[in-house]
Amino acid sequence: MSTLKLPLPDDFHVHLRQGDALADYARDIACQFGRILVMPNTVPALSTTESILNYKNAILSAAPNLEPLMTFKIHSGLTSSDLESFKAMGVVAGKYYPAGVTTNSEDGVSDFESIFPVVSMMEKMGFVFSVHAEEPNVFCLDRETAFIPKIKTLAQKFPKLRIVFEHVSTAAAVKAVLEMPSTVAGTITVHHLTMTLEDLIGDALRPHHFCKPILKLPSDREAIRKAAFSGNPKFFFGSDSAPHKQEKKECAYGAAGIYSAPVLLPILVREFEKENALDKLPNFIAGYGADFYGLPRTTREIQLVKKSWTVPNLIHGVVPLAAGKTLEWSLL
Amino acid sequence: MSTLKLPLPDDFHVHLRQGDALADYARDIACQFGRILVMPNTVPALSTTESILNYKNAILSAAPNLEPLMTFKIHSGLTSSDLESFKAMGVVAGKYYPAGVTTNSEDGVSDFESIFPVVSMMEKMGFVFSVHAEEPNVFCLDRETAFIPKIKTLAQKFPKLRIVFEHVSTAAAVKAVLEMPSTVAGTITVHHLTMTLEDLIGDALRPHHFCKPILKLPSDREAIRKAAFSGNPKFFFGSDSAPHKQEKKECAYGAAGIYSAPVLLPILVREFEKENALDKLPNFIAGYGADFYGLPRTTREIQLVKKSWTVPNLIHGVVPLAAGKTLEWSLL
Repeated sequence: MSTLKLPLPDDFHVHLRQGDALADYARDIACQFGRILVMPNTVPALSTTESILNYKNAILSAAPNLEPLMTFKIHSGLTSSDLESFKAMGVVAGKYYPAGVTTNSEDGVSDFESIFPVVSMMEKMGFVFSVHAEEPNVFCLDRETAFIPKIKTLAQKFPKLRIVFEHVSTAAAVKAVLEMPSTVAGTITVHHLTMTLEDLIGDALRPHHFCKPILKLPSDREAIRKAAFSGNPKFFFGSDSAPHKQEKKECAYGAAGIYSAPVLLPILVREFEKENALDKLPNFIAGYGADFYGLPRTTREIQLVKKSWTVPNLIHGVVPLAAGKTLEWSLL
Repeated sequence: MSTLKLPLPDDFHVHLRQGDALADYARDIACQFGRILVMPNTVPALSTTESILNYKNAILSAAPNLEPLMTFKIHSGLTSSDLESFKAMGVVAGKYYPAGVTTNSEDGVSDFESIFPVVSMMEKMGFVFSVHAEEPNVFCLDRETAFIPKIKTLAQKFPKLRIVFEHVSTAAAVKAVLEMPSTVAGTITVHHLTMTLEDLIGDALRPHHFCKPILKLPSDREAIRKAAFSGNPKFFFGSDSAPHKQEKKECAYGAAGIYSAPVLLPILVREFEKENALDKLPNFIAGYGADFYGLPRTTREIQLVKKSWTVPNLIHGVVPLAAGKTLEWSLL
C-alpha cells in the first residue's frame, strides 16, 4: 500500500471558537498539524494579554502536542505597552478585520487610517500584519478586489511590515500578491483551491460551502491553483477552517465558514498529486509559511497512506467539508 | 388614506405544486391575480390532456375565481394529435426546460434540436413557446447568457412562433429580447427586479432568496428595472412564485424557488411608485402579457390601500419573500 511521508504541516489560519467546542476543534486540527495560527475573532475578541493567554492555555490543555501561534485583533486603541506585552508572551501576528466582513467582525475597524499608529508599532516590533482583505459595503463578488489598494498603501507606507493577504479568493488578489514586494504573502485555503460559486449555488444551495470571502469564478480558482502548485514562496497554506454547528448553517440566516480541518491533508495531497506537484507540497504546508513568519521549519513528520475512507456526515455537531464523500488518502 | 385602483393582474409564470398544498397556493395567488399561467413541472410533468385537466380542476376547485391558463411540458415525443387535444381544451403554451436546470427538470430536454418538429407544430397551431432559458453544465452565472443563441435560432427558424424568455435575470437577456423580433417577449419577476446576489450570499446565507435563474449582479438588476419601468410592451409580469416548504430550503441541499405570491402586488406598487412609473404598472401587470398571448385584457379591478402590514414569517409552512418585513401597501 502506497504511503507518503510529509513534514508535519503548519496551518497559518485557523478558527477554534470558544466554550466546550474549542477542545474538540483543537484536537481535530492537532491530528494533522503541528503549528497553527490561531485567529482572534472570539467574543470578545482576543485583544488583551490575559484573554490571549487563557485562550492559548485552553488550546494546550486540549491538545498538548499542538503549538498554537497566537494573534491579537487589531484596533486603534492598542498601545505600545499592549504590543510589548504581546511580544513578551510570544504572540506573532495582529489580525485586521474591516467592520462587518465576516463572523464576529461587527467590532472591526471602520476607519482604516485610524490603525496606522498601531501598524507602525507592529512594523517596528516585527509583528506580522494578517488581513481579512475585503471592503465592506461593496457588492459581494467585488469586495476583495476593492480592498487591494489598501494593502498596496500599507506595503508602501510600512516597507518593513510583513503582510499576509489571507485566504486569497480572486485572480486579482493573486496578481496583487505577486506584484507587491516580498514583504507581502498570501494564504490559500483548501476550499478556494478546489471550489467555485458553482459549489455553493450552482445546483442546490449548499450552506456548508458558504464562506467569506465567498467562493468565486472558475478563472479565480485557476489563478489560485496556479499560485499554489507553482511553488512560489509568496503563497502558503492557511485553511481558514471555521466550524459552525449544523443548525447555524442550515437555517434562514446561515453563518459563513467551512469546517475543513478534518479533511485538509487528504485533500491537499489529492490536489497536488492530481497536478503532478507533490514535490511542491512540503514547502506549501511546512516551509514558506514558517520562513515568512521567521519561525524554524518543523523537524516532525506525518505519514499518509493510500487507503480510502468516508468523511463522517457530522463531527462534533458540525458538517465538515466533503461530508459523506470518499477520500483516498488517510492519516496513518 | 391613499388608495390605488388597478386592473386585476395576470401572472404569466406561477408554480402551484401538487397534493394538499396546491389548494393553499392557488388561493394565495387568487387573492391578487385574476389569471395565471400555470407551470407544468409537476411530477410527473403535465404532458397529457388528462393530467392537465385534472390539475386545472384541482386549481378551480380551490380557487373558483382564478382563471388558470394551462401549459404543457415540451418533449420530443409529443404528436400533432397531442397538441390538437391541448388546443381543444384551451391550453395556451408549451414550456421548455433544458434537462437539469431547475426544480423537477431532470426529465427535461437534453437534445435541443430533437424538439424542432414539436416546435414547428406549436408555431402552426399558435401555441406560445415559454422557455426556462439556461444552458445546463455551464458556470451558474453564465447559464442564461449561454442560452441566448438558442432563442435566436428559434426566433429565426420559426418566425411566427411567439417565444417568452421567462424570468430574465441578466442585462444580456434584456438586450437580447429588445433586439429580437416582436415575436419574442420576456417576463420579469419581483425578485429579479428587486434583488441581486448580494441578497443571497452578501451577508449571511439566505436560502429563501435562492432561485433559478440565480440572482445576478447590480448591473443586471439595473437593466431589468429599466425594462420594467420603461413601459416597453416586450416585457411583462411573471412572478415565478415557487413555494418550497421551510425544511426543503433550510437544509444541507436547499431547493431553488422563492414564494413571492403573498407579497407581489404590494412590492410591485412600491417599486413602480419609487421610480415614478406607476402609470406603467397597469400595462406591465395586466396589458402587455394578455396582448402577447392574444387574450382579452381583463375588465376586473383590484384596489390597494396605503396601510402598512407585516408579512408573516411562515405561510402554509413556507417562508415567503419579505417574511417579517413591513410593506406599506395592502390589499383592500
